[in-house]
Amino acid sequence: MINIVVDAMGGDRSPDANIEGAVLAVNKISDAKIILVGDETWIKEKLSAYKYDGARLSVLHAAEVIDCNEKPTDAIRNKKESSMYKAIELLKSGEDMNALVCTGSTGALLAGAVLKIGRIRGVKRPAFCPVMPTMNRKIVGVCDSGANVDCDSLQLKQFAVMGSLYMKKAYGVENPRVALLNVGTEEEKGDMLRKETYKILKETPSINFVGNMESRDLLKGNYDLVVCDGFAGNVLIKSTEGACLEMLKLLKTTMTASFKNKMGALLLKKDITELKDFMDYNNYGGAVLLGASKTIVKGHGSSKGITVFHCIEQAYNMEKNGLRAAIAEELSV
Amino acid sequence: MINIVVDAMGGDRSPDANIEGAVLAVNKISDAKIILVGDETWIKEKLSAYKYDGARLSVLHAAEVIDCNEKPTDAIRNKKESSMYKAIELLKSGEDMNALVCTGSTGALLAGAVLKIGRIRGVKRPAFCPVMPTMNRKIVGVCDSGANVDCDSLQLKQFAVMGSLYMKKAYGVENPRVALLNVGTEEEKGDMLRKETYKILKETPSINFVGNMESRDLLKGNYDLVVCDGFAGNVLIKSTEGACLEMLKLLKTTMTASFKNKMGALLLKKDITELKDFMDYNNYGGAVLLGASKTIVKGHGSSKGITVFHCIEQAYNMEKNGLRAAIAEELSV
Repeated sequence: MINIVVDAMGGDRSPDANIEGAVLAVNKISDAKIILVGDETWIKEKLSAYKYDGARLSVLHAAEVIDCNEKPTDAIRNKKESSMYKAIELLKSGEDMNALVCTGSTGALLAGAVLKIGRIRGVKRPAFCPVMPTMNRKIVGVCDSGANVDCDSLQLKQFAVMGSLYMKKAYGVENPRVALLNVGTEEEKGDMLRKETYKILKETPSINFVGNMESRDLLKGNYDLVVCDGFAGNVLIKSTEGACLEMLKLLKTTMTASFKNKMGALLLKKDITELKDFMDYNNYGGAVLLGASKTIVKGHGSSKGITVFHCIEQAYNMEKNGLRAAIAEELSV
Repeated sequence: MINIVVDAMGGDRSPDANIEGAVLAVNKISDAKIILVGDETWIKEKLSAYKYDGARLSVLHAAEVIDCNEKPTDAIRNKKESSMYKAIELLKSGEDMNALVCTGSTGALLAGAVLKIGRIRGVKRPAFCPVMPTMNRKIVGVCDSGANVDCDSLQLKQFAVMGSLYMKKAYGVENPRVALLNVGTEEEKGDMLRKETYKILKETPSINFVGNMESRDLLKGNYDLVVCDGFAGNVLIKSTEGACLEMLKLLKTTMTASFKNKMGALLLKKDITELKDFMDYNNYGGAVLLGASKTIVKGHGSSKGITVFHCIEQAYNMEKNGLRAAIAEELSV
């Protein structure tokens, strides 16, 4: 049995989306057990609308909620009755607890993970690794996407190793193509950090390093994992998402600009909807915090029920396929 | 009279696009004089197809070309018969020469600018500042977009000052809203460089600093200038451009996927074309190298004639409105 703790109160659609995702998971994954942490009365009332195996879905009461505007470290240190605090405590203390899924404050979750859960032996710093859809209908992982804004080359090497194992264990990608985010593809490109990291990655036998990647190529689908410091990774992910969203908005405006356009849009509707679905992060789960001692998945703040389900499924796959043990084996000295 | 040197041999469409752009400029700007540098016979033959004021368009012969695969510093040091070398030499030695427009190798142009043209007094490092179209039909400048991959906070401050003056002088933006590229909007966000820079920008009276910007907001049009180190700026620009291009490609595939879709696309054609034109960098000139002792504009490698014209127009506006003098006044100690 894989035991997954879910912070029921995090995210813009809480607790509904978290509850819906948890029920979906219990119904679809027969050896998963979910513990929802949050306002017990509220959650139980919402749960009464669903059918599920009650033996595999329980509730742990928490009276408070950490919201996204609170200072992360203060919140995680002081708000001991909050759902996130209690969820992290449960994950930490329960030996049979495998994973945590949370759509709340990224900063507080990261602080909680670092302060309370700790790292796998040998890991310098845990790193976030979200995945994005590519134009050839595959996915690409980006590690780190923001947990570590100041990095050195050894951290980047570990992101490459952990991210590579993640793409294998969670998504079944064979021999993942690992690229280093840089300002050009030639070996000598980039700042000091990139030049140093390139040399190290080239000499890391456990990964399939294929060279530098320019950010414009992220969506083309030629790479399975992109390695970067958290600052550049954050810029990469958010500008790509931002540009895609703005293009979709512009397209929507165009399609409703006139009667003629609306007619045209009607004919295209099915395929445009598919295109939008394909770009929708709700279908791709969350960002995994690689290198933490226990599996932690951070879902987008505006995650829907189906997104929370995908996050739980991700956590389940990672646990089922032994990702943590594989990272420990690779990185512990 | 504003004298503008144009490297006729740079870019994928050379010399045609450069010649076309030069002729357009001579015909549209009555007090601009253009010197095309490149293969004289070839250029003159091509020029014979156009009508223009011969007194304001001349040719300087150069037998060689620097291509984009050459090592920048070696190329600019050794290829003394190349069009880029000769164009830079002309810009440097001719006292009445105001500006250079080039669509060739960015690296070689940057090396030439640093080694031969030098900086405005007080400027630590010149920086590239391209502009991008925003969704509210305005533009946003990004400085630095790649000239300096390793930066300190004082350089970033200078990018803010120079970029702000540029948006005023070249595009007439009043009191440009300057933002710092960061991983979140709150003051305390980011790495050490960003935290330090935020404090400095807040205390720089000559700019209108409005705080941090997340990369996903670049295209929304809420800022006139984004300040960043060259590494992050490069990631920002290229991932935004890349995502927009991939979305357009996906849209094109969708629109030709079936007979029904083709019919729909036909109805939308005019507006979709407008959308594409609006996103097309060809309509926005090139990236200016701010802080160099003379005005230098780097056009995209695949610039068309109209793009080269916009680059020349940009250079002309900068000279006409005294950008270099304004930068010198602001930054010289």
